Amino acid sequence: MDLIDLYLQEDLGEGDITSLALVDDREGRAIITAGQDGVLAGVEEAVEVFRRTGCTCRPMLDDGQKMTEGQEVMEVRGPWKGMLAGERLALNFLMRMSGIATQTRQAVDSCRKANPNLVIAATRKTTPGFRRFEKRAVRLGGGDPHRFRLDDAFLIKDNHLTVVGSVFRAVRRAQSYSFAKKVEVEVESLEQAQEAARAGADVILLDNMTPPQARECYLAIKAVDQRVLVEVSGGITPDSALDYAHYADIISMGALTHSVPAVHLSMHIVE
Amino acid sequence: MDLIDLYLQEDLGEGDITSLALVDDREGRAIITAGQDGVLAGVEEAVEVFRRTGCTCRPMLDDGQKMTEGQEVMEVRGPWKGMLAGERLALNFLMRMSGIATQTRQAVDSCRKANPNLVIAATRKTTPGFRRFEKRAVRLGGGDPHRFRLDDAFLIKDNHLTVVGSVFRAVRRAQSYSFAKKVEVEVESLEQAQEAARAGADVILLDNMTPPQARECYLAIKAVDQRVLVEVSGGITPDSALDYAHYADIISMGALTHSVPAVHLSMHIVE
Amino acid sequence: MDLIDLYLQEDLGEGDITSLALVDDREGRAIITAGQDGVLAGVEEAVEVFRRTGCTCRPMLDDGQKMTEGQEVMEVRGPWKGMLAGERLALNFLMRMSGIATQTRQAVDSCRKANPNLVIAATRKTTPGFRRFEKRAVRLGGGDPHRFRLDDAFLIKDNHLTVVGSVFRAVRRAQSYSFAKKVEVEVESLEQAQEAARAGADVILLDNMTPPQARECYLAIKAVDQRVLVEVSGGITPDSALDYAHYADIISMGALTHSVPAVHLSMHIVE
Amino acid sequence: MDLIDLYLQEDLGEGDITSLALVDDREGRAIITAGQDGVLAGVEEAVEVFRRTGCTCRPMLDDGQKMTEGQEVMEVRGPWKGMLAGERLALNFLMRMSGIATQTRQAVDSCRKANPNLVIAATRKTTPGFRRFEKRAVRLGGGDPHRFRLDDAFLIKDNHLTVVGSVFRAVRRAQSYSFAKKVEVEVESLEQAQEAARAGADVILLDNMTPPQARECYLAIKAVDQRVLVEVSGGITPDSALDYAHYADIISMGALTHSVPAVHLSMHIVE
Amino acid sequence: MDLIDLYLQEDLGEGDITSLALVDDREGRAIITAGQDGVLAGVEEAVEVFRRTGCTCRPMLDDGQKMTEGQEVMEVRGPWKGMLAGERLALNFLMRMSGIATQTRQAVDSCRKANPNLVIAATRKTTPGFRRFEKRAVRLGGGDPHRFRLDDAFLIKDNHLTVVGSVFRAVRRAQSYSFAKKVEVEVESLEQAQEAARAGADVILLDNMTPPQARECYLAIKAVDQRVLVEVSGGITPDSALDYAHYADIISMGALTHSVPAVHLSMHIVE
Amino acid sequence: MDLIDLYLQEDLGEGDITSLALVDDREGRAIITAGQDGVLAGVEEAVEVFRRTGCTCRPMLDDGQKMTEGQEVMEVRGPWKGMLAGERLALNFLMRMSGIATQTRQAVDSCRKANPNLVIAATRKTTPGFRRFEKRAVRLGGGDPHRFRLDDAFLIKDNHLTVVGSVFRAVRRAQSYSFAKKVEVEVESLEQAQEAARAGADVILLDNMTPPQARECYLAIKAVDQRVLVEVSGGITPDSALDYAHYADIISMGALTHSVPAVHLSMHIVE
Repeated sequence: MDLIDLYLQEDLGEGDITSLALVDDREGRAIITAGQDGVLAGVEEAVEVFRRTGCTCRPMLDDGQKMTEGQEVMEVRGPWKGMLAGERLALNFLMRMSGIATQTRQAVDSCRKANPNLVIAATRKTTPGFRRFEKRAVRLGGGDPHRFRLDDAFLIKDNHLTVVGSVFRAVRRAQSYSFAKKVEVEVESLEQAQEAARAGADVILLDNMTPPQARECYLAIKAVDQRVLVEVSGGITPDSALDYAHYADIISMGALTHSVPAVHLSMHIVE
Repeated sequence: MDLIDLYLQEDLGEGDITSLALVDDREGRAIITAGQDGVLAGVEEAVEVFRRTGCTCRPMLDDGQKMTEGQEVMEVRGPWKGMLAGERLALNFLMRMSGIATQTRQAVDSCRKANPNLVIAATRKTTPGFRRFEKRAVRLGGGDPHRFRLDDAFLIKDNHLTVVGSVFRAVRRAQSYSFAKKVEVEVESLEQAQEAARAGADVILLDNMTPPQARECYLAIKAVDQRVLVEVSGGITPDSALDYAHYADIISMGALTHSVPAVHLSMHIVE
Repeated sequence: MDLIDLYLQEDLGEGDITSLALVDDREGRAIITAGQDGVLAGVEEAVEVFRRTGCTCRPMLDDGQKMTEGQEVMEVRGPWKGMLAGERLALNFLMRMSGIATQTRQAVDSCRKANPNLVIAATRKTTPGFRRFEKRAVRLGGGDPHRFRLDDAFLIKDNHLTVVGSVFRAVRRAQSYSFAKKVEVEVESLEQAQEAARAGADVILLDNMTPPQARECYLAIKAVDQRVLVEVSGGITPDSALDYAHYADIISMGALTHSVPAVHLSMHIVE
Repeated sequence: MDLIDLYLQEDLGEGDITSLALVDDREGRAIITAGQDGVLAGVEEAVEVFRRTGCTCRPMLDDGQKMTEGQEVMEVRGPWKGMLAGERLALNFLMRMSGIATQTRQAVDSCRKANPNLVIAATRKTTPGFRRFEKRAVRLGGGDPHRFRLDDAFLIKDNHLTVVGSVFRAVRRAQSYSFAKKVEVEVESLEQAQEAARAGADVILLDNMTPPQARECYLAIKAVDQRVLVEVSGGITPDSALDYAHYADIISMGALTHSVPAVHLSMHIVE
Repeated sequence: MDLIDLYLQEDLGEGDITSLALVDDREGRAIITAGQDGVLAGVEEAVEVFRRTGCTCRPMLDDGQKMTEGQEVMEVRGPWKGMLAGERLALNFLMRMSGIATQTRQAVDSCRKANPNLVIAATRKTTPGFRRFEKRAVRLGGGDPHRFRLDDAFLIKDNHLTVVGSVFRAVRRAQSYSFAKKVEVEVESLEQAQEAARAGADVILLDNMTPPQARECYLAIKAVDQRVLVEVSGGITPDSALDYAHYADIISMGALTHSVPAVHLSMHIVE
Repeated sequence: MDLIDLYLQEDLGEGDITSLALVDDREGRAIITAGQDGVLAGVEEAVEVFRRTGCTCRPMLDDGQKMTEGQEVMEVRGPWKGMLAGERLALNFLMRMSGIATQTRQAVDSCRKANPNLVIAATRKTTPGFRRFEKRAVRLGGGDPHRFRLDDAFLIKDNHLTVVGSVFRAVRRAQSYSFAKKVEVEVESLEQAQEAARAGADVILLDNMTPPQARECYLAIKAVDQRVLVEVSGGITPDSALDYAHYADIISMGALTHSVPAVHLSMHIVE
């Protein structure tokens, strides 16, 4: 059973008793409409949900495109029972993923004016069991999903440094553990930042710094090695991201996935 | 594989390579601390996550209790590797569930001043794959989870009525389909509300009505049968809920689960 | 893996070695024939089983229709190997589900003569892992499946009352726990029955009563509130159900699923 | 997720709402009592069910022992919620498995008086998803479970012979397909029986024969080779089995698993 | 999720990031070519892998056929992304299964010259999680897969005899445990071999004997009963098998599956 | 169900019928002994297998240590039935993983004499469903597991270049797709190698080159950027690896996992 089957089972249980009691086997047509402006995401998933409940979809907009309030985004055809069985899950995909894509796109558009090469990235602060789709929504909004799992790349954080002691030693140990993964290290001071750069870290994460602190570290790191990437993070929101945009290669924000309002969409049977 | 195993696998992949490279097999102690005021939720889940990564927890607060910024909410003991492997999932549980519980508690407290018997309820607008825990967070915040699945109770909505035609006939068909499930019907007018009450619906949902419209329907329904429960819904937020509090038995809000900011918590290894 | 895949794997193991050794890849046709009179059930499931073993079916009778000994009920076409691989599971579905539907239909037909509104219901005394299909067979026989799971509705039983003490308090606690689920309570005396009705129970189950006791309770409950449903249960068989038919809204019988003889059907390859 | 978890989930859904609403976290004790005479089976499974719901059991009788109406068969201790959560599944195991064991034991006892070496065997006519436990109940009743799956042994049936044509060729092909599995062949005439014996079949199944026909075939087969086992089958019930007991090594009966009444057991909380 | 889905997930993780980054949605064609002479196996599996990644295959050779270095064995058509996503798993199937089939065929061809009725068999010394396919490769190479699981047949080994004590008693107990499974017993001396034959074992395994010892036991067993099958095993390789070929019905070799070099195949996109 | 449960089920089926028939519930002790010299691997897995069959282990050697023929490597205690049920799977883990660790260690020891910093790496040419353990065995032998999945790092191969055209463009596209993953590119000529280095590839794989070709490319790459890692691959075996050791940072070999003979170990019950 894959994730979409799991989600369908979560919503259906033994079946949609309201439709079983009320609806016969005739077929019809429904329209999914945007209730707000935003960036549409979750189209591929919604189409797949309805496919599994016996319906076919004709999207009017693709994943990642802008939608405006009142715009029709998808037509669904099939048995009424199938449309009603898939409705909630399809909308839950669309509403949450569009919320994330919309918020990501705003942060990207805002920061790219200041720094056209800046990458806006998510974190692992996602909803358990739904990470794959939240990460995909970040990408559809123009962001970078960052690590999916703990085995994607090394990310040496404060808790690791508490245990290991030295930034330099931590970076070197990680490098020798696997040549195939990047080594990122989270630092909280200028000294740590320079030490990480000298150790050959691929990415250095400046954690919970003010914009001036971040600027100072950024310049110091690049002075050691232009190729090291600098990421800033820690309580940054789409609003405050702009303050860091000139002195970062990447800004990562947990809020892109953990505190995002859904974008409203609804489905109505039209015949 | 149950849901918590699924979530762990989603986060761990082949293992926490950073810890594998850096951390030896010694044991230690960590503290989870609240980063904001709120209602704590997810304690039971966090304890279970750490149990599966080989650690033991001592909660300082229980699920559903209030926490204040800076307060220590849980102690974790065990191998460093186990604490680090469980950290993100445990915090993701705590942050999202506490966000939902906090927002629910605010709506409940606010509305109960006006109507002490009012029930604040969630909807099925949840994150796919995580509904069980979002519903539990609603309950921990003092709310009612409402239907978990489409087979929990009949809920006859606009799309069903488009298909069936008559409110009265729809209610009666549902009643004869199963004696064991309540019949709720969503109405959009006074006439439909009265028809539903006369048909013997257990719960009548007033959808997208203004407070005066809801008042009128509420009184008309109770005039038919005092025992019918009246639920209002449709774009209501914790802020606007108070306007409906006097003329409803239940106010349900999708926003309790689909648009909730996380409450911040963090874990720090202390030895 | 869904249930039908699980059942197929249970029967096939590494494959049907007899067919692998003996049968080549040619295609043929087989007929499934009723070995006894009864109500046919399991057609949908049998068709799905054969679909998964590469065959297509043409049912001559639908689920819920009467069949007579010797009647052809389904034609199967496809590779011999696929027909033989699906044969036993398809017949096990048909034989057990038809057994349940047949017995349910007999009870319904018998009791409805006395009380045309009477509901014949099953219980949770089903075969582990096969409940969905046993409940469906009850419905195909004209019965009501009653609760599928412990979360479908409240059913306060003797063991709960041993713990809680008071019928009234138990009903009220259940009501305040969830507004969306019906509250049913099992009673063993007239006093308990009246107490349950006054507490606002939706359904009252008279457990292990003689027909005269049931009559007395039924009348007392309806005197409190006409809308309360009365269910009788406890060792009732299709034969003895008639004695309760006038003073019950629902008669539930575990025997419909736990002690039902299969109805014989067999498959023969005809070319 | 193993089968017992699957069964628990089937019964529990999101949880036992009645207990959640009514029962606190105190612990207690319950007794499971036989409601009829019979052979007890399912003890090991019931103990495991309660273990998973947080309880411990002390069986007073072991699997396969005789029980009499009113006899206490098991004590359960643990949280009330755990006892109530496991009650139905544990009883469903015990009731169905004891039903099968009881019926098997009766057939074994009856036939063994006539032929002390006779084996009473089940078939693959089991409830989908529950075969493992139905087969175990047969063994606990003194019977032989016969094949669990299609890959356990060759069983060449009428449908295979329709396809292959010759009994002799079918047996030989099966033998050359795998040296590790026995070859059984179902025959409907004396000629086929002799042909199968001469081909070296390990077991010959006499299908739907009258007792005199079975006797004739039995003697003919043993005349070819004393070591070939003779099984009779086809509509035989525990009652009619005795007629075949002298001229068979094995009597197999689908009715042992497909048409067996449950033996009643119940659980009562005593403190 | 079946095994092939499990294997695909093992290789794909969250997706083939290289293709996602580089390759658009166009379609193309690829050829799979043999890098060595050998017996081809895994065609059916490779076709199924590519089917699941959205491609279609046209095999130029069937499972079990001989291939020569440089020969094209399969054409794959479909989206580039699908071909690249399935490439490694399809080749891993083909390379390992062809390695096993090739080695098995060599042993079979070599031994059959000496004894045309000899069976070359595998053991349970397979790679965990891949046994089904390794056994199938043995069959495609002309060998017998022997037991798939511990419940396929009795195989009484030295460790069992340590526990039970007597060969005779062990064989008899196994026979009475199930009439449907063959009884094989592993012996280490002439006395044990004769005892096993007299007890009625179906197969006798001569473990770790020299060719002369095996010859002596073989003749002694057949003197007791011509129908008992004699298997030799224990450190035999395809090279040394010939020495036993005259005095065995079956030679089994773990090396056929546990120490087999892969046969090289590769895939190249041609347009 | 995790992988070890899946593997156990693969081997056990409905249970170890030989033990069920022959062995009572007594407990005993067994010893696992090395049949050859080598590097031991799979200890952790074997211990876990026996834990699941109810036994406890006391390893005499740890994973990654050298063993010599005849050396006792592990003691197993528990019920005879549990020891026999886990025996084959535990040994299959130990034999295959030790085979891989032994071969890897030989390659590492041989090449490190020439180049102490050289990394010996595996590939994705593993047995489907068993990759996790084959990769772990490589690490236990002193090697690097390289990519586990297609999403671990970019690896731009000949088939991708066929599609994309330019090495430079491919590397740049991969970099912009994700900042968190390394970019490796496979090249077949000096020009491609230099182009990849100039594009900023993290790792450059020299495919199927002779030692002199590899030397030339290695020097050219390092002339562009000392930090770029150079991997050589393509038909290299532990024997031929030494020829490349001076001009490579990494040598990767499919043969470490796809063509490795098992190291023999066996278990004997001693009481």
